[in-house]
Amino acid sequence: MLEFEIYDLLKSYNLNTPRYISFELDEVPSIDFYPVALKLSSSKVVHKSEYGAVQVNIQNKDDLIRNIELIKLNVASKGVKLDTCDKFLATEMVKGIELFAGIIDDEIFGKVILFGRGGVMLELDRDVCYIRLEADENEIINSINSTKISKIFRGFRGKKYDINLIIAFIKNIQNFIQKNETIKECDFNPVVLNDDGLFIVDARIKKDDTQKSIIENQNRHSFFANSNVAIIGASTNPSKVGFALAKNMSGFSGNVFLVNSSGGKFEGQILYKDIDEISDDIDTAFITIPQKYVLESIEKLISKSIKNIVIISAGFKEVGDFESEDKILNLAKKHNINIIGPNCLGYYEGSKNLNGTFATKDVKNGGLALLAGSGAVLSSLMDKASLCDIGFSHIVSLGNMIDLSYGELITMLENENECKAISLYIEGIKNPTLFIEAIKKSSKPIYLYKTGQSEAGKKAAFSHTGNLAGNYELFCGIMKSLGVNMVDNIEALIYKPLRKADNIAILTNAGGPATVLADLIVKKGKTLYELSNDDIKALDEVLPFNWSKNNPVDIIGDATSARYESALNVMMQNDKIDLIYVILTPQYMTDIKEIAILISQFKSSKIVPIFLGGGLIQDALKVFRVNKTLYFTSLDESVCFL
Amino acid sequence: MLEFEIYDLLKSYNLNTPRYISFELDEVPSIDFYPVALKLSSSKVVHKSEYGAVQVNIQNKDDLIRNIELIKLNVASKGVKLDTCDKFLATEMVKGIELFAGIIDDEIFGKVILFGRGGVMLELDRDVCYIRLEADENEIINSINSTKISKIFRGFRGKKYDINLIIAFIKNIQNFIQKNETIKECDFNPVVLNDDGLFIVDARIKKDDTQKSIIENQNRHSFFANSNVAIIGASTNPSKVGFALAKNMSGFSGNVFLVNSSGGKFEGQILYKDIDEISDDIDTAFITIPQKYVLESIEKLISKSIKNIVIISAGFKEVGDFESEDKILNLAKKHNINIIGPNCLGYYEGSKNLNGTFATKDVKNGGLALLAGSGAVLSSLMDKASLCDIGFSHIVSLGNMIDLSYGELITMLENENECKAISLYIEGIKNPTLFIEAIKKSSKPIYLYKTGQSEAGKKAAFSHTGNLAGNYELFCGIMKSLGVNMVDNIEALIYKPLRKADNIAILTNAGGPATVLADLIVKKGKTLYELSNDDIKALDEVLPFNWSKNNPVDIIGDATSARYESALNVMMQNDKIDLIYVILTPQYMTDIKEIAILISQFKSSKIVPIFLGGGLIQDALKVFRVNKTLYFTSLDESVCFL
Repeated sequence: MLEFEIYDLLKSYNLNTPRYISFELDEVPSIDFYPVALKLSSSKVVHKSEYGAVQVNIQNKDDLIRNIELIKLNVASKGVKLDTCDKFLATEMVKGIELFAGIIDDEIFGKVILFGRGGVMLELDRDVCYIRLEADENEIINSINSTKISKIFRGFRGKKYDINLIIAFIKNIQNFIQKNETIKECDFNPVVLNDDGLFIVDARIKKDDTQKSIIENQNRHSFFANSNVAIIGASTNPSKVGFALAKNMSGFSGNVFLVNSSGGKFEGQILYKDIDEISDDIDTAFITIPQKYVLESIEKLISKSIKNIVIISAGFKEVGDFESEDKILNLAKKHNINIIGPNCLGYYEGSKNLNGTFATKDVKNGGLALLAGSGAVLSSLMDKASLCDIGFSHIVSLGNMIDLSYGELITMLENENECKAISLYIEGIKNPTLFIEAIKKSSKPIYLYKTGQSEAGKKAAFSHTGNLAGNYELFCGIMKSLGVNMVDNIEALIYKPLRKADNIAILTNAGGPATVLADLIVKKGKTLYELSNDDIKALDEVLPFNWSKNNPVDIIGDATSARYESALNVMMQNDKIDLIYVILTPQYMTDIKEIAILISQFKSSKIVPIFLGGGLIQDALKVFRVNKTLYFTSLDESVCFL
Repeated sequence: MLEFEIYDLLKSYNLNTPRYISFELDEVPSIDFYPVALKLSSSKVVHKSEYGAVQVNIQNKDDLIRNIELIKLNVASKGVKLDTCDKFLATEMVKGIELFAGIIDDEIFGKVILFGRGGVMLELDRDVCYIRLEADENEIINSINSTKISKIFRGFRGKKYDINLIIAFIKNIQNFIQKNETIKECDFNPVVLNDDGLFIVDARIKKDDTQKSIIENQNRHSFFANSNVAIIGASTNPSKVGFALAKNMSGFSGNVFLVNSSGGKFEGQILYKDIDEISDDIDTAFITIPQKYVLESIEKLISKSIKNIVIISAGFKEVGDFESEDKILNLAKKHNINIIGPNCLGYYEGSKNLNGTFATKDVKNGGLALLAGSGAVLSSLMDKASLCDIGFSHIVSLGNMIDLSYGELITMLENENECKAISLYIEGIKNPTLFIEAIKKSSKPIYLYKTGQSEAGKKAAFSHTGNLAGNYELFCGIMKSLGVNMVDNIEALIYKPLRKADNIAILTNAGGPATVLADLIVKKGKTLYELSNDDIKALDEVLPFNWSKNNPVDIIGDATSARYESALNVMMQNDKIDLIYVILTPQYMTDIKEIAILISQFKSSKIVPIFLGGGLIQDALKVFRVNKTLYFTSLDESVCFL
């Protein structure tokens, strides 16, 4: 599209451009908006600047005539022959703050709006945010406010621009793109903001005629209502997954049917030789048999009114066998079966004590739902949680995700009252539309870790827009605008939900490490609780005169467990403090193990010990593990969940 | 200073400004460099823009006449009466890339140059670097290259500016400031860079007549040549620091004299009642007696030709007693004694097995010198090092630093051959000139952790320059330009020196965590080693067909110690790999402890295990501790030393 065509198109969607006039090559129009920029509008000259086909700062008619001739000479000298298809375009020169807007076609989210600081330094600044075409005003505002340039809407250098101008502008772009489906990418740079409004000065548009299919949302029965479950491939051989599964399942409050083609017994319980031998209906089956028998088993399970199947067995897509997955999926769709997996770790449901995983047996019932695309990440997080009293309402290992993915599961969790928060470990998602809908509808706080961060380095081909849109950044930006808590390490998925940390106190026997921790806390955007006069008075009564009188509460290097106890007793009585980090460094007089025992006896998730040392602190760490107290041995790691 | 006076001054130091002409209020000069900006130059009008006393884009003489009248009207309407002291200034309007330069007077480093991206968005961008007035060309280049805007010197949007222009400009500023000592702060914004050169368009200068004293470097005898040492306050009471010190010192290869006013014996060794009873001269004394007896002891030690004193005793400046410190310092200066402390943990020297600290006894001789301003940080790092076979040539706890500080000690370490690298934990420094000189002269790699990072939020009062210069950022910037390795966590001070990590490999039984680790490694600016065809062939021979064929080397969830061993044997033969992270997640079939034993048996600092889990991995971690193998239990922490 030629520039004036784009200008006309934009105008019809209330997207302002500077005043302009397009005219024939031999015309000299009268213009009432000097100074102007003069450009040749011709499909024969793509890189206008290189051909001398753009002249700026033209002040009056004489100037205009001179520059018309200049451009004609310039392109002629490059061998370009102009004809009646070609025109001139004179645009008003507008000045102000240079912004940027664009459209990128992302492989996960489809078309997404980019907005941020513009101008020639665009790629250097990379100060952009991401906005969905369907984003509502709230999402739009969240996104805009995540840019540095948004400071101009809050007051900058004595001036304050109106953010509503931008919101209206973004909405117009949303409308423009929705009505023009063939537009694949746009690049508006600069978009000038001044006292007269917002003007798209330069615009490039790329069209594409290929259409994307939209995946429809589906209504599903829940995965989480199990009375009868079966293990297909339960085993008496301790080296088999089917053994671990049967062992872990022993505490389930419903009925478990064990199937193994060899028959026999598992710890006194019948091993059915065949699924057909089971007389009851089965809600959910866990399949751990070799890949080649999986499809056959599913066919048999259909006769048992099966609702959900967890395929733990591997050997599908991940080793190149897409065909078997397709067959299973078709069968599942036909018979309205939910499938988890294949190639997964299984699934856990806390309220029923259903541990259908081959990870640790030591899982506790609680309020957190954890969904992960990596079985290994799950098994290590479950094992970490076992050390520090974190309980789960649901754990799902998603495996190859041939059927159920994050979106469906988040929707199903909405009706599960035990689930108070949802943590997601995501390597990739399957159905973004459904995923976003589920997140928007979910009433539970959602925590999300996304892999692939260094992909931000990858560069797309066409436009500025493409260059700016690292997949990871785009994903994060959109998730944040939807209210999702993005976390930057895996451990935060279990430590952060259900733990408040807005006002933080530090208790320490060492000033240096406390300073470092205070820095780390502030960097994470959290607040150190400021001690009130009452707090100081109460602490004065139990601490030696030379304590710090401040948060961090430094109780000096010669502190023993008695002094830690006095301070903790006072601090724990203050409800305004959400979290108390207790730092210990091993001084000569420190009774390290006693301090650990003291901390564990408080049995409070508000107290998080950080013991800094090596050989000297090992007995104390053992005390923490035995008592399921979350502890850290490095300052950096200790803030992982803030 | 009025603007044209500043312009004249700058010009005399080869600092270009746009062409300009200053003229009387009733004059209309002929100008040959239109378009110009016209400003009133008057001490009566400080905020020119607000008074309408600046007009830009003036194109010709008629325009100039109009604007002269306009400005006169504007200021008259504000009640300002102009007289013959006032002038007009017309400056050429230059366009190009807007840069910034400034001078700030920092409390540690004195006057420092700031350079970076300029323009009205200066505070938003905060894209600046810091350059010392004494910086040589190499330092200047290092600093410039740390800014984002420096991309324009490496090629940006098809254009490449010459960095030498900037280097010359910075040198001219250095000269300008050195020759004009009364200039306290400067603010050049914008400095416009275009094809014609570099032009200071707007300049503000603040003068100050107060002068700073310069602290001279001193020649000192070394602290590190001890044959005879004494402990003043050695004790038989296990709850006393003097007991711990005497215990820790028992392995010293020289002579130790123990002094305790009660006399008696310490594990068979004489406790002298008084320093005078010792017949030998003493090189270094460690004082642990109560504060009030310290000065008296020092006086007695002088008669023993004492060279160095380590005052471990506390109760000085940190509780408000500055006077005692002054007395001690005067005595030390008079008798040419080096003092460490007071209020410190002591000092360790590896080659002589001299552990004069009351931290862990378990310290190993090695190549790293560690100096720290926090005894608690030292004691925890020493204890951490005890778990993973890290050895020290020297450890010094600096305490209140009344005498020796980092600079003097770095200079002394230069002649200590055992010391291969120096790590510094710094809360504050005493003598910046000496410190910088010592760093510049040191031939050993230096690693530095600085506290006070959140101070970056603190804002100075006067200028842009002040606003931009967070103390921490400025400190880091200057240290980096001197070649110091700034580390961002305490542990890196012991894990990073003496360990190469340029080409990194990952061995894992789980894809997810390996992806996360790869991201973390790339984010730290390190490179993942790319497997060669030979590497792949060698691994193919020992691994199952479905291993990843790539780094991360994923040997699949069912890997046992035998498979880890096969892979490690191949990978360890490749000298190009500096570091192998071995990730383990506890799958059902993983023989966790056996894998830990295997790793420990390699006895190589090239292999760093990361075991992800909780209860299931504890036995394995114990294996690592017993074998002094450095290990991690979180991915984030595992990259702390990269």
